[in-house]
Amino acid sequence: MAEISSCPPLSRESVIAARELIRPLVHQTPVLTSSFLDKLASTARDPSELGEKWKGRKPASPKLRLWFKCENFQRGGAFKARGAFHALERLKMEPGWAENGGREKGVATHSSGNHAQALALAAKENGIPAHIVMPSVTTPYKVNATKGFGANVIFSTLTDRLAVAERVVAETGARMIPPYDHPDIILGQGTMGLELQEQVEHLDAIMTPCSGGGMLSGVALSCEGTGIKVFGAEPEFEGADDAKRGMEQGKRITDVNSMSIADGLRSYLGVHPWSVLYERKLVQGMFAVSEEEIKAAMKLVLERMKLVIEPSAAVPLAVVLFDEDFRSLVEREAGDAGWDLGLVLSGGNIAVDGLAKLFAPEQ
Amino acid sequence: MAEISSCPPLSRESVIAARELIRPLVHQTPVLTSSFLDKLASTARDPSELGEKWKGRKPASPKLRLWFKCENFQRGGAFKARGAFHALERLKMEPGWAENGGREKGVATHSSGNHAQALALAAKENGIPAHIVMPSVTTPYKVNATKGFGANVIFSTLTDRLAVAERVVAETGARMIPPYDHPDIILGQGTMGLELQEQVEHLDAIMTPCSGGGMLSGVALSCEGTGIKVFGAEPEFEGADDAKRGMEQGKRITDVNSMSIADGLRSYLGVHPWSVLYERKLVQGMFAVSEEEIKAAMKLVLERMKLVIEPSAAVPLAVVLFDEDFRSLVEREAGDAGWDLGLVLSGGNIAVDGLAKLFAPEQ
Repeated sequence: MAEISSCPPLSRESVIAARELIRPLVHQTPVLTSSFLDKLASTARDPSELGEKWKGRKPASPKLRLWFKCENFQRGGAFKARGAFHALERLKMEPGWAENGGREKGVATHSSGNHAQALALAAKENGIPAHIVMPSVTTPYKVNATKGFGANVIFSTLTDRLAVAERVVAETGARMIPPYDHPDIILGQGTMGLELQEQVEHLDAIMTPCSGGGMLSGVALSCEGTGIKVFGAEPEFEGADDAKRGMEQGKRITDVNSMSIADGLRSYLGVHPWSVLYERKLVQGMFAVSEEEIKAAMKLVLERMKLVIEPSAAVPLAVVLFDEDFRSLVEREAGDAGWDLGLVLSGGNIAVDGLAKLFAPEQ
Repeated sequence: MAEISSCPPLSRESVIAARELIRPLVHQTPVLTSSFLDKLASTARDPSELGEKWKGRKPASPKLRLWFKCENFQRGGAFKARGAFHALERLKMEPGWAENGGREKGVATHSSGNHAQALALAAKENGIPAHIVMPSVTTPYKVNATKGFGANVIFSTLTDRLAVAERVVAETGARMIPPYDHPDIILGQGTMGLELQEQVEHLDAIMTPCSGGGMLSGVALSCEGTGIKVFGAEPEFEGADDAKRGMEQGKRITDVNSMSIADGLRSYLGVHPWSVLYERKLVQGMFAVSEEEIKAAMKLVLERMKLVIEPSAAVPLAVVLFDEDFRSLVEREAGDAGWDLGLVLSGGNIAVDGLAKLFAPEQ
């Protein structure tokens, strides 16, 4: 990974530069709409259906036009390709990297999820080796997809994966490409925000899922100075809403150990995302939803939009449909005009047996 | 339904006219591609993986570029909206229909599937009542979707649905709109073929699923005189390959009672489709695949293309990937140049619990 000191500043201009770098390498994903979901989002909920948290409150009546940014159609099945390709392009620009055998030594990371596949894909296209440390409990679907891109997969336990990755780096000389906490990754993910701004006229706001915060902070940078509001969405299960809680307390939270069904959103906010989101105040609000709400939103996307998404990708829609704090905010701020709101469907990497398990009828 | 004698002739010109009629009423659905599936389709299969039928044969090596016509994104979740909207437009043009109270009497049909929803939707948009007879075993998902469009749903047993529908027609004066065996329906479904021809340059062939044959015969008409070849795909389970067998025997087969997982493809070929496909020889070949092959193709579309489709929609891809007769034909006729082949993803109406059941791990 490029040294932090040599990275471009975290700014909208740098996101624009990142986009030029990766334009031929990643898909400009389509933006889809659903009149059914617009109507559902723009209808006050039945008071009897409000979640426990909102009991007794008058349901809000926001007006919303939803624009779904389909990163499930991105190369490798998730937005992570943006950051991975950008990190490799930047690495190739680093003085001395190739001359010192960087290309032969390759890259490494530890990930059980979409970053693993994305980095494997980007490395393969660049003809350089990728060493990916994955916990041995990782689903065969994800292991096979990563191996399918030609990566060298090394198994670890859940707790020693960082140590194993560091050993791999020491042994191979490969450069570590972290999943989110690095400017090159953040700037790469932010490119989806620029695309959305071009694809949707008069966008009022964007909401993305938030885990380590690479995507959310990148998108926030892409919106800086445009007037477009940015929101983040998290699962609340077992403390996965660390970004929301951390911002409320004014302190980054790092002790998170959640097994939310939104398996891409179990990490905690990184240092660089925190600086963008909290210290520079580039996010206007964080919201968290329950496991059942995530599942309900995912079901709507599958059945109504006919799109396969993974649970993490459903979290923003769950906020829009079920979080009365967010819905009141839209009603209050947007009034009768309503908002054009971009929602990032961050990925679609779930196997059919994962779907079957998630939606199996209760026994 | 318009009287047969007053219908336009079954010709490409009539499909073009149908398209003008329904252009503002239905979606021009997108065409998607998958480099993964192109590669898979263009790779000779491992001899050990050939189905029982092909054992000992040298696997074919066709070159294929696949263009997926996404009718799962069509209004109502399936291509059926095309025929239903067209039938209503034609009905409204019938002299005396409105004057004799046709609008108040409405329309009727019997269907447990996508035609029910499509007719309910089209009737709703036209502000006329729809009476839909559904077998009482129909899944709640489909009943609710049909009711959701405001239709009057009447339950029947599996065997008396036609009789119940005729009684409803007698009682209400509603006009019967059959699911496929009528020129107005065939011409409406054919409009997807015209779109594909515009959306894909140099298309060599199109393959659609085949049940009653409305879609296949409509698409065949849309290709007449263009040089584009047309193929049909069926499940072979429990005799659902009636069109293939019937054409081989030179006689339309009408005794089909299949419970294929491709639940939209359990009917037998209608009289009008038969005349187009067999008598006028507008289809170049029929192919049939096994239940496991359908499931395998569906899994690939869900996992690789991130699209929700129902099992029926996966049948053409199953032919492309697993039917050595079809694959040899392409190798032989297309040679090194290969074919640009349009495949119709006919619909996406499956509930998440249906998906869960289909892909539940073996117990």
